[in-house]
Amino acid sequence: MESFYDAIKIITYNAFMNTLFADRIIDVPKSFIREMLKITSDSTIISLAGGLPKRDLFPVQEIIAATDEVFKVYGRDIFQYSNSEGYLALRESIANNYLAKGLQVSAENILITNGSQQGLDLLGKVLLNDGDGVIIEEPGYLGAIQAFSLYRPHFSPVPVSEEGLDLEKLQSVLSEREHKLLYAVPNFQNPSGITYSSNNREGVADLIREKKVFIVEDDPYGELRFAGIAKPSFRKYLPEQTILLGSFSKIVVPGFRIGWIVAPPEIYEKLLIAKQASDLHTCHFTQYILYQYLQKNSIAEHVAKVIKTYREQCQCMMDSIDAYFPSSVEYIKPEGGMFLWVTLPKGMSAMELFPRAVKEKVAFVPGDPFYVNKKGLNTLRLNFSSVDNDTIKTGIQRLGKVMAELQ
Amino acid sequence: MESFYDAIKIITYNAFMNTLFADRIIDVPKSFIREMLKITSDSTIISLAGGLPKRDLFPVQEIIAATDEVFKVYGRDIFQYSNSEGYLALRESIANNYLAKGLQVSAENILITNGSQQGLDLLGKVLLNDGDGVIIEEPGYLGAIQAFSLYRPHFSPVPVSEEGLDLEKLQSVLSEREHKLLYAVPNFQNPSGITYSSNNREGVADLIREKKVFIVEDDPYGELRFAGIAKPSFRKYLPEQTILLGSFSKIVVPGFRIGWIVAPPEIYEKLLIAKQASDLHTCHFTQYILYQYLQKNSIAEHVAKVIKTYREQCQCMMDSIDAYFPSSVEYIKPEGGMFLWVTLPKGMSAMELFPRAVKEKVAFVPGDPFYVNKKGLNTLRLNFSSVDNDTIKTGIQRLGKVMAELQ
Repeated sequence: MESFYDAIKIITYNAFMNTLFADRIIDVPKSFIREMLKITSDSTIISLAGGLPKRDLFPVQEIIAATDEVFKVYGRDIFQYSNSEGYLALRESIANNYLAKGLQVSAENILITNGSQQGLDLLGKVLLNDGDGVIIEEPGYLGAIQAFSLYRPHFSPVPVSEEGLDLEKLQSVLSEREHKLLYAVPNFQNPSGITYSSNNREGVADLIREKKVFIVEDDPYGELRFAGIAKPSFRKYLPEQTILLGSFSKIVVPGFRIGWIVAPPEIYEKLLIAKQASDLHTCHFTQYILYQYLQKNSIAEHVAKVIKTYREQCQCMMDSIDAYFPSSVEYIKPEGGMFLWVTLPKGMSAMELFPRAVKEKVAFVPGDPFYVNKKGLNTLRLNFSSVDNDTIKTGIQRLGKVMAELQ
Repeated sequence: MESFYDAIKIITYNAFMNTLFADRIIDVPKSFIREMLKITSDSTIISLAGGLPKRDLFPVQEIIAATDEVFKVYGRDIFQYSNSEGYLALRESIANNYLAKGLQVSAENILITNGSQQGLDLLGKVLLNDGDGVIIEEPGYLGAIQAFSLYRPHFSPVPVSEEGLDLEKLQSVLSEREHKLLYAVPNFQNPSGITYSSNNREGVADLIREKKVFIVEDDPYGELRFAGIAKPSFRKYLPEQTILLGSFSKIVVPGFRIGWIVAPPEIYEKLLIAKQASDLHTCHFTQYILYQYLQKNSIAEHVAKVIKTYREQCQCMMDSIDAYFPSSVEYIKPEGGMFLWVTLPKGMSAMELFPRAVKEKVAFVPGDPFYVNKKGLNTLRLNFSSVDNDTIKTGIQRLGKVMAELQ
């Protein structure tokens, strides 16, 4: 009888829990990738699944030196509460970097965030009511889908191809309903590796110009270009309608969790309130270290090293694919970034491939989670930044074997 | 003519901006305190307004040593992306601290956040739909009011007196409508300095037990007791209905932005998703430093030093008030924490006092922002933690002079 009452207690408790949560959280899944990374944390599995920068390239000695310097120069002030905007000198240094590229950005437009992921959350918090329209790339960045989902928008996916956003589809989506945001990763997009062409950017800007839509240009990989030439930011075409997201995660270290938002003054003011309410401010200690690092080292030289490595690893992955994947498998050749996007033969589901691959000790990310409302897709994402060439070769060889078996 | 078109352009743009924002952000004011701190950043003004711990007490040498050790032992891993829950060893150390106080908390219940402010944001995100009931202390912690406000709850204020929450009012509030949360700072409350008595805690727990209400027990100051004896946590009375918020900000340093939530498993799971979506994870580098600091140093000894200083400064402030304030001014004698709560004679508005005080080069926080829906109050908050005794004496003397003039 006791177990009967226990059961009743559990049922009542569960019913209680179901009414407990806010609507916004009920349908949001855990990050598929972060959960999958746990499954594949088995060290005998070659993971081409993550989105990690290469740890061997972290400028550790330089960061240690910068930390020592910060301790010496700034003493105890760096440990006190500080302002919500972020460390002014760091913001000025970020602004100067934009100016050097011909973009008019001043420190007052820059809000330091806990990685650009927090930028996404703050934008959702400040801009999105239930049901507001958000145009999102298809396939699109999972972290953005997850962050915005909490504010319950209506997602309008627009496919990306090797040129960039599908302009025809964008036009029809824009005419169907109002939208507040267009979220885009125009350089070496996650997951597809695609870079929008200059023509495509201009075309997108032309369609957006007359609408009340902000472009959120998320550019964590922009500096990591190993082929072709840099394309202009949307901010060149639509200075008042472009919000920029940036991050030190891919060019210095991700562990400091330091990114930023560049926003027009009216939006900035609201973002600042949301930042205060969210966590008062981002750790200034690590902001000072990062600033010190940037002062004493050439970030351009460091990034050149990263680019060289990623270029080689990307080439190695493409060569391995050409050698080991069935010839019916296609991929997009990226000009930079960290990812290769693979298309399997029609009808072959990447989700079905996944458990077989794990059995063969290799992992990737199936395409499904990068789409808002599609399933069973024949696409997948491979990461080439975090693994060395030998591992890439072996991993691709294993994956090719599983693909051949599934054909 | 050009200016006419410019004007039209501005009007159209403003109309555009007003429809742009999410409803949740429109009415949320900037943090009054953080804005006020800017006004009073003039170094000739004695600020009794802030809520800062004393910078001279930061264990800087120990943190430098801990940082060196972390660099030596953990190398480059601390700079990589990491898990959203937080550094396991740090969470275990926090759990052990609860166990030592007789509270059953395990590391799996602990989520590391960017200060406990982020804990408030995540709880709002996960639990609050528009219009959900939140019981809040009156006066209550501004940061909680601000963080929850973004999720548009219905606030039910319940007055606090020197005993704790007003039980009669709590009972009537609970009978009037449903509530999801009761937010409480039962130890040395911010702003009032009040500590709930054991009887009061039991009384609150009895009223809450049968309701579907969670108590959010925010305890940033609990360790800073300089008089009386420690009271039990609500978790003792209501283990399944109590969510704990904790922070290293007041006992080690605030600049690292490291706090935590202790939550039941079902809520924890949702909080973790919200944490992923909000910023992936809190900086692990500073978590490792903090853990290393806790391993190599006696936090109890450090806290004893902080307590000794705050006790003296609190006493100095009370003595100065007795000497310099008009006798009609009352205050609550705190048993710990960082704040003194002052009640002016009836009819004297602290908001009116404020600009006069600033003119006399002394600042405090008027009571108004600590109330959800009251204005023109005769209460104010003084901080005694961040200033030395001489400054306290001079500040209180100046303030007493302004009070006497306003009488």
